[in-house]
Amino acid sequence: MAAAETPNSPAAGATPAAGAAGITPEELQLSARNHSMPLEALRRDVTPPGLHYVLTHFDIPDIDAAAWHLRIGGAVERALELSMAALRRDPAITVPVTLECAGNGRSLLDPRPLSQPWVLEAVGTAHWTGVPLAYLLGKAGVLPTATEVVFTGTDAGVQGGVAQQYARSLPIREALRPDVVLAYKMNGGELPPQHGYPLRLVVPGWYGMASVKWLESIEVVMSPFSGYQQHIAYRYQDSEDDTGRPVSRIRVRSLMVPPGIPDFFTRHRVLRPGPVLLQGRAWSGEGAVTAVEVGIDGTWLPAQLDKPAGGFAWRKWTLPWVAEPGEHVLTCRATDITGATQPLEQNWNYQGMGNNVVQRVSVTVEGG
Amino acid sequence: MAAAETPNSPAAGATPAAGAAGITPEELQLSARNHSMPLEALRRDVTPPGLHYVLTHFDIPDIDAAAWHLRIGGAVERALELSMAALRRDPAITVPVTLECAGNGRSLLDPRPLSQPWVLEAVGTAHWTGVPLAYLLGKAGVLPTATEVVFTGTDAGVQGGVAQQYARSLPIREALRPDVVLAYKMNGGELPPQHGYPLRLVVPGWYGMASVKWLESIEVVMSPFSGYQQHIAYRYQDSEDDTGRPVSRIRVRSLMVPPGIPDFFTRHRVLRPGPVLLQGRAWSGEGAVTAVEVGIDGTWLPAQLDKPAGGFAWRKWTLPWVAEPGEHVLTCRATDITGATQPLEQNWNYQGMGNNVVQRVSVTVEGG
Repeated sequence: MAAAETPNSPAAGATPAAGAAGITPEELQLSARNHSMPLEALRRDVTPPGLHYVLTHFDIPDIDAAAWHLRIGGAVERALELSMAALRRDPAITVPVTLECAGNGRSLLDPRPLSQPWVLEAVGTAHWTGVPLAYLLGKAGVLPTATEVVFTGTDAGVQGGVAQQYARSLPIREALRPDVVLAYKMNGGELPPQHGYPLRLVVPGWYGMASVKWLESIEVVMSPFSGYQQHIAYRYQDSEDDTGRPVSRIRVRSLMVPPGIPDFFTRHRVLRPGPVLLQGRAWSGEGAVTAVEVGIDGTWLPAQLDKPAGGFAWRKWTLPWVAEPGEHVLTCRATDITGATQPLEQNWNYQGMGNNVVQRVSVTVEGG
Repeated sequence: MAAAETPNSPAAGATPAAGAAGITPEELQLSARNHSMPLEALRRDVTPPGLHYVLTHFDIPDIDAAAWHLRIGGAVERALELSMAALRRDPAITVPVTLECAGNGRSLLDPRPLSQPWVLEAVGTAHWTGVPLAYLLGKAGVLPTATEVVFTGTDAGVQGGVAQQYARSLPIREALRPDVVLAYKMNGGELPPQHGYPLRLVVPGWYGMASVKWLESIEVVMSPFSGYQQHIAYRYQDSEDDTGRPVSRIRVRSLMVPPGIPDFFTRHRVLRPGPVLLQGRAWSGEGAVTAVEVGIDGTWLPAQLDKPAGGFAWRKWTLPWVAEPGEHVLTCRATDITGATQPLEQNWNYQGMGNNVVQRVSVTVEGG
C-alpha cells in the first residue's frame, strides 16, 4: 500500500526538525491520542491504566483474543502457533518495569523535531505478567545461526511514506534474558486494549519502542532486521543526513511531583511557606540508580533513596524542604551505577530521542 | 491563597481567545495531561479506563478511601457523614452514560479560545455504579426552601486568579432525577484515580463538568451557587464582556471511526477500494438520537441506527460504502428528538463550549 501524499507530512524516512513556531495541528492530534502520566502519579509505586503513558503509532487494533494466535518461526527447530489459552498454561512471571517513550521531552527541544510532542511525562511503571520469552524461544529451539528476533504487531499504518505493520527486533542475547516477558496482564488485571491486548512484549530497561504491542508474530532471523522502526525511526541522528545509532536502553532520569497546587492554565505551582516533602522517582535502563540530587535555586542536595521496586523499575526519592516566601526553581538529577547523570542542558538530536535533561519546576511560595 | 502572577496566565475570570498562531506551550501541557478517546474506540459499546476521555482541572488527588468521608449538609433535616463502607451498603444502580467535555472541539475553533485544546475526541461511555443521589438526599431530607445542590471535589488549584476547590451545582430538580449517581465503580471495576476515586457524581445528559470527581461534600442551598466553575467558567459567552448563559446538557453529536489505516504523523487515512462498513456513535443530552446521516463527498445518506445503550448513552450507527479510488471527504451528522442537528460550520463562542460541528474525515482510496 503506497503512502498518501499530504501537504503536512514530514519528509519520508525521517522526522524533520521544526522551527520555534507553535505546536502544529498534526502534533496536537498526536498529543490528543497519546497520553502521558500526570506528574502527581509519581507518588504511586505502580501506575494504573489511564495514568501510564501510551504511544500508539497507528490505530489501536480491535482483536478477538479467542481467534488470535501467536506465530513463532524463522530460524527455529519447530515453528509454533499458540492460542491465548495455550500461552496461559505456560509458566508465568511478573516483572515490575518502568517504561518510558524514547521521545519523552521532545517538545522541549529547540529546534523542535516534529513528531509526538511529549513534554516530560511519557513514563509509567507497571507489573507485567506473562510467559518469559526465553521459555517460548526454548520451546521453538533457536538455531545457532540466529542473531536477532523480530517482533511484529497487528497495528498497521504508513510512516515516512512506508506502509507497514509495527515491527522491531532485539539481539538474540537480549531476547534470551530471563526478565523479557510476553505479557497478558498489567497490574494483575487484563491487559487493556491500548497496552497491547491480548499480548505484548515487555523488554525491561529498553525504551518503550522495543516492547511491541498487539504481538502477532515472532521471527528468529540470521541477519540484521531493516524494518522502518529499526532502521529509520528510533535512531540518534545528528542531522537528516546522518544514518545515526540505534536507540536502545533508557537513559538515567528522575522526575519530581510538583509541590503545592497548580494554576489551571499555566500549571505554575503555588504553595504555602513551611516544611514540604519533595518527592519523585528515578530510573535508568543501564543499571541501578545510585544517587538523586535535588536542586533548590541552584544548590544541589542529596535526596534519600528508597529501595528500587525491581531491577528496571523506578526508585522513590524524597527530600525535606522548608519553603520560604518568594519564587523558587526546583530541579532533580539522577545518576546511575555506570556514572551516567542527567544533563543540565538539552542534548539535541534530529529525531528528539533519549532526552533526559533535568526537570525544572518553578514555584511561588506565598506570604512572608 | 492568592493566585500566582505568571506571564502566560490568561486574564482572570475568563478564557481569552487566541489568534491563529500555533498551539502554545501551556495548551500542550494541558493536552499532555488530559487525554481524549482515540476515535477507533468508537467501535466499543463501553470505553475502558485509559481510552475514556479525562479532564483534570488541577491535580489528581491521592485519597485514602479508608479515611475518607462524604459530608451532606446545608438545607437538610439531618446532616450526614458517610464512609465508603456505609455508601456501599446503600442500594446501588448501574447507569450507562456517555460523558463529553463541554470544551470538546475547542482547538478547531477560529479564533481559538485558550484552554484545554481538545480536538474531537473528548468523549467516552462507561457503566457507572453507585448510590442514587436522590436516595441520599432523601435520607438527609431536603428542606422545601432548597433550590440547588452544590458538589465539591477534593481537587484544588487556582483558575482565573481564584484559588478554589472544584465545585459545581445542580438545580434541585436535576439532583433528584433517579439516574443521577454517586459512583464508586466504573465498568464493574474500582473507580480509577483519574475518574474520581473513591467517589464521583455522574449526571447523565450533562457535559462532563457537572459530574464532579473526588467528591467530598454535598451541600443543599437556597440561593444560586456563584462558584468559579458555575459563574465564570462553563458559560456560552459571545465575548469577554458578555456574562453569558450556563453550559448544561450535551448538544447532539456524532463521530465516525476513521476507516482504513493512518499515516503516523498526519493521521490522514488510506484505504483499499471496495466495500467498507462506515461506523460510529451518536449521542445527545437533550433526548434520543433519531437520525444519523453520513455525508460522502457532500451527498447525505441515512445511516442504520442500533438501539441506544441507555437513555443518555451513545447509539451505534453504520453505513455500507463502496470506496472508489480517489480522494474523498466523509462526514456524519446526528439529529435528536428535539429536532436539533449538528451544524456544518463552527458555532464560535468565547470559551469554546458546546462545539458540535460535524466531523470531516479525509481519505485516500488507492488504486484504480
